[in-house]
This record gives sequence, structure tokens and C-alpha cells, in this order.
Amino acid sequence: MTAPPHRAHPAGPGRPSPDTQQGMRRRNLARVMHTVRAEGRLSRAAVASRIGLTRAAVSTLVDELVRWGLLEELGPERPGRVGRPGSALAVSSRGPAGIGAEIGVDHLAVCAVDLRGRVRSRAVRHVRDRARAAGPVLEQLTALVRQVVGEAETEGLWPAGLAVAVPGLVARDALTVVRAPNLDWHDIDLGGLLAVDMPLTVGNEANFGALAELWLDDRTPRDFLHVSAEIGIGAAVVVDGRLLRGTRGFAGELGHVPVRPDGPACACGGRGCLEQYAGEEAVLRASGLEPGENRVGLLADRAAQGDARVRSALTDAGTALGIALTGAVNLLDPESVVLGGALAELAPWLLPSLRAELARRTAGPACPVTVSALGPQGPLLGAAHSVVRGVLDDPAVVAERT
Amino acid sequence: MTAPPHRAHPAGPGRPSPDTQQGMRRRNLARVMHTVRAEGRLSRAAVASRIGLTRAAVSTLVDELVRWGLLEELGPERPGRVGRPGSALAVSSRGPAGIGAEIGVDHLAVCAVDLRGRVRSRAVRHVRDRARAAGPVLEQLTALVRQVVGEAETEGLWPAGLAVAVPGLVARDALTVVRAPNLDWHDIDLGGLLAVDMPLTVGNEANFGALAELWLDDRTPRDFLHVSAEIGIGAAVVVDGRLLRGTRGFAGELGHVPVRPDGPACACGGRGCLEQYAGEEAVLRASGLEPGENRVGLLADRAAQGDARVRSALTDAGTALGIALTGAVNLLDPESVVLGGALAELAPWLLPSLRAELARRTAGPACPVTVSALGPQGPLLGAAHSVVRGVLDDPAVVAERT
Repeated sequence: MTAPPHRAHPAGPGRPSPDTQQGMRRRNLARVMHTVRAEGRLSRAAVASRIGLTRAAVSTLVDELVRWGLLEELGPERPGRVGRPGSALAVSSRGPAGIGAEIGVDHLAVCAVDLRGRVRSRAVRHVRDRARAAGPVLEQLTALVRQVVGEAETEGLWPAGLAVAVPGLVARDALTVVRAPNLDWHDIDLGGLLAVDMPLTVGNEANFGALAELWLDDRTPRDFLHVSAEIGIGAAVVVDGRLLRGTRGFAGELGHVPVRPDGPACACGGRGCLEQYAGEEAVLRASGLEPGENRVGLLADRAAQGDARVRSALTDAGTALGIALTGAVNLLDPESVVLGGALAELAPWLLPSLRAELARRTAGPACPVTVSALGPQGPLLGAAHSVVRGVLDDPAVVAERT
Repeated sequence: MTAPPHRAHPAGPGRPSPDTQQGMRRRNLARVMHTVRAEGRLSRAAVASRIGLTRAAVSTLVDELVRWGLLEELGPERPGRVGRPGSALAVSSRGPAGIGAEIGVDHLAVCAVDLRGRVRSRAVRHVRDRARAAGPVLEQLTALVRQVVGEAETEGLWPAGLAVAVPGLVARDALTVVRAPNLDWHDIDLGGLLAVDMPLTVGNEANFGALAELWLDDRTPRDFLHVSAEIGIGAAVVVDGRLLRGTRGFAGELGHVPVRPDGPACACGGRGCLEQYAGEEAVLRASGLEPGENRVGLLADRAAQGDARVRSALTDAGTALGIALTGAVNLLDPESVVLGGALAELAPWLLPSLRAELARRTAGPACPVTVSALGPQGPLLGAAHSVVRGVLDDPAVVAERT
């Protein structure tokens, strides 16, 4: 799933690009894939009735998808139906896999997800020093990708692409990390540094976390704001099931929304940004704790044990989140706000003041705030699933590549 | 242009709705209309080469559009070209017209715009008392619509639909005004109260103002934030050429973004909202002026004359706008911010502090802020053009209606 290129003005529903038979066929191939995937096990006739095409048209599409290894025939359907029993179809458990990777501040992770959405292989490396040159980090990541791909291949899978989640701003080319302050990376072209032989996409971890929420949790609405944190605070705006990327690809910088305009100076150039009140370093400082390893776990443990200073710091962070989210909710009118990543782990102590602040500043019912069930797994899963989605949304790319 | 209904979860590119020949034909009819409209005067062959379809296919589409009165034949093209001269086509100056209406706090306005985008008829009524029951206002508006439609009909036009811009929140049914504080309207169903015999859409004035900016000014990018004011402050978020409406249709409430979280109480339930610093009443109060008629004109006159108190009030309003926009820009990453409506009139005195505040809070180059050339005409024009766009984007609706 490559980010769409920035389109020149003007386009729109009537823009002059031809709508061809070929385009229609590709979209119908996608409809067949999504329909079979959603229901798990379907006959050709059932697919035809679900998507409103003739049985003959669907059979032609299915034959192609079977030939490409994207669908498999499970044998005759259970008897007892009228007419000749059709063969049931399912999405293949072999064939293409999405490879997801995550570059965290203190870990690297890679996983392979098949077309059915199951994680088939996974590897994690913990690393100690935060600021490391991109070269060695990406060498280590390349090795990890090769290990996971090797494991997946022994199960009959092949890598359809690699998506990498990074804690920073990614250019709209979906390859260049423009700025990742917590890695101390600037203008790093992952396309040149990752030695992998498959299509590559790089994206912001908050964006991939939001997509995971959208794709993997049925309770997630199609319009929501996903707020997450590792060290910084990031957000992702999902509108009608699509990520809002922004002109430069930088949308979702909730951490730099001014909360108290005369507050402390922030590295972004601003003052009193949300990150100065609810960012990890600010919360650790207010808690009287030293930055170190497993910082979020430490805060959660202390808060669970009833440490008054930590609890008070998290309450204040929740209030600041509530102020920033009031602005975001007024601007975007999302159906809900989802707390993910480290914020999900700390939610029990952030939510009361956060919700109170939102309610206090809203005349009607306040926007609901929920907690991600995926937590810190979101970005890695979202990355891998974005590759899988790319295949489901346009299965013909597989034929072009093989 | 009706707001899309709120779609049930889940949909997406592969959702099971059939992609039919009929749908393809409708989209290609739209491509022909947009192509001819963009270039003004084109032969069938030129249209075919622009949109990548065969000349035979385009001829069939064109014949239909001519029969429906949407395109007209201008006679043979100028000679000197190779081959038999083709007849040049143009968008019809008769046929369907978009009717736009605006319910302002102290005026009602209606206009008719033809498919070429020209205003063909217009009427305005100034009204004095701000809070009036919806019934009499809508009776007066109905009469004004009939007058404008009557004038348009004498020129061979017929009304394809009516779009009404209101200074308030509109439900996603695009008919019900949920809340218009400055009219003192709550839950008013315009569908039942406007006695007009044509498709009706109701929308927020800031949204229509943003669409006018997008459609009528070539300099406008496809990703921008439009900020406008009559009495309240509203904004509209345009992403990739489409309006972001929000779950309930309430997106764009920039006026209630907290600027100073402990500031004065606001009617929305919040504290220190932007409207408390940059709203018309706040600025009039800080200027030592009484609310009255033509309030924006009064502020602009006094500021132009060098009134220090008015200038200082506008500078402070610009600063508050800069703080709220810093948050919005961080969240949305738009290509630009456009000031429209009353803010366009006051821009000379708002912009210096607004731009300084944005720059002060941004590490890199700050988001550019420009001033609308349409100013207070934006919402009315945007409403009328939204109906015209509806015809251009799906010309077949005309055949279904006539």
C-alpha cells in the first residue's frame, strides 16, 4: 500500500481518466476477494449473489484468482442444498504474505501475515541505545526481515511486500523518514538502505496503528481519531475508512497542538504543546522518575501500586489530552477517539481526567473515548496488514509480479 | 449535491457493490461534461483524445448529452484542419441551473448559476431583527427563490436543485438545521418549511464557502483549511478536493477550539474557545463598540482610519487565530489556510499577528495563509455551484428527472 502521490490540481469525480473494462475487471476481482475473505467459505454461486454479478462472470474471476494462488478450492460444499453442489472457496493460506516491520526506540520487530490475516512468523530484537545511526539499525532490520521471510517460505508463503512503521514523519514518497526525533534520524531514505527484494512502503507508526484498529477490531467506526504514544504523542485521523495523510504526509501531529499557549518551549518551535504535558518525558519528570528502559511499564506499575506522585502526573497528562482532544473533536467531529500504544497501557489512570475534561468542554454528549485492544502491537500488525490489503484491493498486482 | 449518508461499517475499495456497465457509462458521461466545460469549445475527436475513449464511444455519449440539453453544438469548427471539420461542442447556456440561497443573520440571498458557471439571476433582501421564527424567514426565502427561478426561466433555464447555506450546524440528512445560535434556531427541518418544487440540500455556510474557493479560484489547493466568520467562527476542512463533514456533519468547529483553557466561559460549554477572542462580539467588545448593523464594515472602517483600540483588538484576534490554527495545521497538514467571509474583509489587520503566531510556533516554514477573493459571496456561490457540480458529476440525473 503505497501512499497516493500528491495529485496536481484539478481532479475530481469527473477528471478525464478513462474508465475501462480492464479497470472494472480489476475492481471486480477485488470484490470477489473481499467477499470470500469476509465470509470465510463460499460457493461461486454465493459470491455471485453477494456482489450482484452473473455466475458466469464470477466463475471467470474466481478461476483467475485460483490460478494466481489467492483463492483455493475446498472441495464440494456440504450436501442438502438444491442443485449440483458447488465447490466451496476460501482465501488461500499459502501464496502472498504481508511483511510488517517496526523500528521502535528500543526494539525492532518483524512479522508475516497471510491473506487470511493470521500472523505466521514473527521476530523481535531489543536494542539498548536510543540514538543509533540508521545504517546499522537497518542492517539489523534487513537480517530480521530475511529470517521472518525464510520462515514464512517454509510454509508456502511468499512476501508480497514490506511495510515499515517508524516513530517519525514520513514524506509522501512513503520511503523517506523526514524526521524521527527520538531516533535522531533526519532525511533517511529507507528505500536505499533496506536491502530487501520486494515492494517497500514506510509509514508513521501512529498511522499504521490506526489502520490496525480499523481493520482488526470490528467495533472501530469508520471515522475516528487514533491517539498513540511511544515517546512522542502521535495521532492518526481516519475519515470514512481512509487515513488522512496531509499535504506533506505529516497530518496527525496532535503532540504539537498548543494546550497552554504560554507554556514551556517545545522542540517543534512552539510553546505549551501537548507533548510538554502528556509526553513520556514530561510525565516521568512530573513523577520524579528517571528516563530508562521500559519507561511505560514502570509508570503503569507505580500507578497500579498507588504511587500518588505518578497518579497525579498521569491525571494532569489526561487533562492536557482532554484539552487538545476538545480542539481536535471540534475540528473533525469523529465518531470516537481510540487510545493506542503506550496510552492504552496507561489508560486506567489517564481516562478519568481526560473524559472529565472533554465532557466539561462539550455542551452535548462528549465524544466517546475507547482503549485499543491491540495496544503496542498495533503499528506492527497495521504495517503487515497494509500489504495484505494491497493484494486484496487489487489482486491483479500479484499476476503482474509473478 | 446531497451529503452522502453515514455508511455502515465496513465498506472500502472492495466492498461488494457491483461495478456495472451502467455505472461506467454514467462516469464517462461526467468525464465528457467536465472535459468540455474545462476547455470551453471542443470537437468530438478532441474530447475522445482528452479522455482516452474511442471517437465512436464519445459520439454516443455526446449525442445523449445534447439530447438532454447539457451540451450544445456550436456549428463547424474553424477550417484549416485535416479531414472533415467536426462540430464544436460547448456546455449549454440554457438547460439546468443551480439555485443557491443564503440565510444570513441580517440578509437573505438567492442566485441562479448556469452550467457554464455564470450567475444569471440574483436577489437579496436585508432584514433587521436577528432572531426571527423560522416560518416567516423561510416564507420570505421561498418568495425570493420563486422570483429568481422565474427570471432564470425567461432565459431558457430550469432549476436543477436548490442548495441553502445557513450559519449553523446541519445534520447529515442535509435538510435539518440542528443549531444556528445566531438565528436562535434549533432542529428546524427546512425540507418541510421551504415550499419549493426541486431537490433541496441544506449546508453549513463555511462548507459552501470552502467549496466556492475550491471550485472558483484556480489558486486554491486541493488540501486546505477555510476559515470564515459571520458572527461565529467556522472552518471547513477540504481533503483531496472533498469536504470533510464529520460523523454528525459538524466538522470544522474551529470557533470552539480551546485557545486559553482557563479563559472565559463559552456558550458551547467550554472555556477560552477561539470565539471568545476572535469572534465578532469579542472583537466589538474589545474595540469599545456596540453590536449593531454592518458590524464588520464598522470594524474595517475604524481600523482603516487608524483607530488604535480597534487595531489592537484585531491584532489580539489574529494572535488567537494563530494559536488555534497552529493546532489545526499540526493535525491536518493542509497546503494552505484561506481566510474567507468577514475574516477576508478584516484580513489586513488580522494577518500580521496571525502569521507571526503561526511562524513562532512552527520549526520549519509555516503553513501559508491567504485571503479569499470571494469574501462574503463565497457561501451563496458555493451553494449554487454545488447544484451545478451535481449535474456535471452525474449528468444522467437530468434525464431521470425530465
